[in-house]
Amino acid sequence: MVKVRTLWVCLITACVAGCGAAAQDTDLLPAWNDSTSKKAIVDFVTKVTREGGADFVPVSERIATFDNDGTLWAEQPIYVQVAFAFDRVKALASQHPEWKQQQPFKAVLDGDMKAVAAAGERGLLEIMAATHAGNTTEEFETIVRDWIHTARHPTTQHLYTEMVYQPMLEVLTYLRAKGFKTFIVSGGGVEFMRPWAERVYGVAPEQVVGSRAKVKYERREGRPVLLRLPEVDLVNDGAAKPVGIHQAIGRHPIAAFGNSDGDFEMLEWTTSGRGARFGLLVHHTDATREWAYDRASQIGALMRALDEAPTRGWTVVDMQRDWKVIYPFQK
Amino acid sequence: MVKVRTLWVCLITACVAGCGAAAQDTDLLPAWNDSTSKKAIVDFVTKVTREGGADFVPVSERIATFDNDGTLWAEQPIYVQVAFAFDRVKALASQHPEWKQQQPFKAVLDGDMKAVAAAGERGLLEIMAATHAGNTTEEFETIVRDWIHTARHPTTQHLYTEMVYQPMLEVLTYLRAKGFKTFIVSGGGVEFMRPWAERVYGVAPEQVVGSRAKVKYERREGRPVLLRLPEVDLVNDGAAKPVGIHQAIGRHPIAAFGNSDGDFEMLEWTTSGRGARFGLLVHHTDATREWAYDRASQIGALMRALDEAPTRGWTVVDMQRDWKVIYPFQK
Repeated sequence: MVKVRTLWVCLITACVAGCGAAAQDTDLLPAWNDSTSKKAIVDFVTKVTREGGADFVPVSERIATFDNDGTLWAEQPIYVQVAFAFDRVKALASQHPEWKQQQPFKAVLDGDMKAVAAAGERGLLEIMAATHAGNTTEEFETIVRDWIHTARHPTTQHLYTEMVYQPMLEVLTYLRAKGFKTFIVSGGGVEFMRPWAERVYGVAPEQVVGSRAKVKYERREGRPVLLRLPEVDLVNDGAAKPVGIHQAIGRHPIAAFGNSDGDFEMLEWTTSGRGARFGLLVHHTDATREWAYDRASQIGALMRALDEAPTRGWTVVDMQRDWKVIYPFQK
Repeated sequence: MVKVRTLWVCLITACVAGCGAAAQDTDLLPAWNDSTSKKAIVDFVTKVTREGGADFVPVSERIATFDNDGTLWAEQPIYVQVAFAFDRVKALASQHPEWKQQQPFKAVLDGDMKAVAAAGERGLLEIMAATHAGNTTEEFETIVRDWIHTARHPTTQHLYTEMVYQPMLEVLTYLRAKGFKTFIVSGGGVEFMRPWAERVYGVAPEQVVGSRAKVKYERREGRPVLLRLPEVDLVNDGAAKPVGIHQAIGRHPIAAFGNSDGDFEMLEWTTSGRGARFGLLVHHTDATREWAYDRASQIGALMRALDEAPTRGWTVVDMQRDWKVIYPFQK
């Protein structure tokens, strides 16, 4: 009799604990409306963390990767790192009097965005090389830290670090609470993100993967430094994202979050693995509270990934419908 | 009176706690003889983990990096990865009948180590390219895992994974218990170490940094794979170690452990940072229980780092004198 009672108590406790856990989990995502997207996230996490379940994944294998621009923070009207580069051109202009007459620098100094755009990708690469190289890694970190501390978005006037997505911050926290290691895997520069990613996203420098410049070890006045060279080492976008993941993490993620076709291969790589996998795309559908763009956008174009999402089982977040709030300051 | 008593209780408690902690810490390194080396390790860890102390380092900044070959496991008479490459030549020989007549492969198949040595670095690179490329990353992982599971050291007949240094395993565990993140930063191939580093050293794949081949993302029968190319992406040795650390970790380590001049820059980079820092060299001085070698060695040559250790404040472990046991099987 005692045994039967114990069994019943155990069963009841387990049921209550189980149901309670799922109910609590949805509470961990308060900025999400009750939607299929929210349910898909919670169902996946519940499934892979249920000990003894068919889809259980041990803590060490719980790797989740997040794109940054357009997935964790706003990327319109221009990537934040490009805004940083433009501000660097202005800050460095006094050391480069020739820039007043020389494109694409003249266009940046004149605030002539049409002329900047006309300079195309090559022009942008020239700007990036001129503003992102020549410093030591420590100097560059200080420059980024100082800039991000005060730089504001051109239309909302909010700090860029305030224009992060509250629902995604909650996903990051939720996953970490469930034993996941959360990584940023971005086309943005790794040294542009590391100085603030821990404070803003709770993601440590060693869990930030991004594009990178070559660096060179040398001694300056007897002290070793790493000098940033004007040479690209890895552009961590598209088919290079699985490469960046492999180099830096060396494990197959089980969940990946992106928003553009630049994330296609990351989601494909992640969700093609064995066992339970999760892919999610943030679809920018909210022209009022954020921006609405996909196929035709110059920035963050989303076409192939959107078309293939249903057959691949990827969750597509409809920002307008699924997100109760967009930014933390709207809470 | 109450205040004074409280103060005294606090002081006594703090003292007891402090002394107790230090005493316990030395117990965490039982394979170490009581020596200046052991004391230096414990003193450093005690110093950076003492809350409120002048040298306190927050947990997130407690990064320690370890070379692998000759620092965590034996590297004589040849690097384990080279032994692996030779075994791969033998395993692949039936697919390459031409190797019977073609150097340096013929020398490997004949077991003629003099002829292998005569082929020099170029010959070795040919062997590495022929045995380390052409597979997907998953296939290569399986090959390494299968090999390391059974491969034995040519003279001791122990599994290579048994020829790890018990005192260094204790340092790894000790540091992790004190909130450190422990990384391997090796000249060896990252994909050669990751499949077993967690089991043997407790170091997760995402905390292994090493030399790496280029990989390419492609689809095979509709499934994405990463193909290993016969091109080197990074030789993580010497001045490239701080580069590898910067790429993968993005923070300055506060402690670094090595054994050869290939670790010089890693120790220099680590110990040149602000605040309390620690550098340690394993000096192979035990011809009986392990090997004795330094300046003139073909493998793991130690000269400049040994000469500069005193002025740089690096701890030099005298393996014969400082280590009670070398390998776990001697416990």
